[in-house]
Amino acid sequence: MAESDYETALRADDRLDLRMWLRLLTCATMIEGRVRRRLRDSFDTTLPRFDVLAQLDRAPDGLTMGELSGRLMVSNGNVTALVERLVREGLVDSRPRPDDRRVQRVRLTESGRRQFARMAPANRAWIAAMTAGLSRDDMARLYELLGRLKGSVSAADRRVEEGADGAV
Amino acid sequence: MAESDYETALRADDRLDLRMWLRLLTCATMIEGRVRRRLRDSFDTTLPRFDVLAQLDRAPDGLTMGELSGRLMVSNGNVTALVERLVREGLVDSRPRPDDRRVQRVRLTESGRRQFARMAPANRAWIAAMTAGLSRDDMARLYELLGRLKGSVSAADRRVEEGADGAV
Repeated sequence: MAESDYETALRADDRLDLRMWLRLLTCATMIEGRVRRRLRDSFDTTLPRFDVLAQLDRAPDGLTMGELSGRLMVSNGNVTALVERLVREGLVDSRPRPDDRRVQRVRLTESGRRQFARMAPANRAWIAAMTAGLSRDDMARLYELLGRLKGSVSAADRRVEEGADGAV
Repeated sequence: MAESDYETALRADDRLDLRMWLRLLTCATMIEGRVRRRLRDSFDTTLPRFDVLAQLDRAPDGLTMGELSGRLMVSNGNVTALVERLVREGLVDSRPRPDDRRVQRVRLTESGRRQFARMAPANRAWIAAMTAGLSRDDMARLYELLGRLKGSVSAADRRVEEGADGAV
């Protein structure tokens, strides 16, 4: 496959941080695109739908809409509409929380749990295949460095909030 | 800032490759969101517009629409409409290529080049601030590991094309 992506035209003298960021975005875009395509081809579903089911599967006690929105992989313009559709299809239910009936709690139904259980192993296998070229050590190191990057972005947010980075 | 993202509910026993992928996507989403917001706040522009100008700035001889599409950072439903708008605003021009007049070649105008030159240093400063928590060695190592990951994804594509990975 002749590949052309947004690293293609970077000059060797471009800054390492900029090159790292564009390569990170290349990797994320590549993997996300392949997962989207395979979800569609294998399960006739979309990434935002898979994403909602995955988050609810990890929260047996359910999540409020706010908690759910904050945990979704892909920013989704309309989580409410998506959840309503899943409720109509019987995959998700939405009920008042027993301890505070003003708050709706969203959970997987048994049918939703079964549907997710069919997709999850396929998703794991796709990710495993796409990352097969990395040794366990590479993977652990990459995971750790990405953790530092995440911390670095959050630290930059705090500097902006404190006004210490006003020039940027 | 109380943070909740899609790593929040991962169980410690989830596979390292899956955790790495979700963390990678977290980082990409965080940085991309901040760049979008700052482009809007500082330059009243969007990431796809910035992206087109950046790619054309790196290609003094211009690009065909196909080359341009392949190099954009963010998948854009309608590159043609975006380029037409930039042409109307006088930032970009689109002319037949001298050696093959059936092919349109898109280039920055002088005004487009000036506009990009105002935005590029700000973008570099944002990325520098967000990655400031990583040492030069961390950054080089992260860049290299992301290169391995990119190669691994492409290798998985080739296995699928060759039918060797039919089960996945």
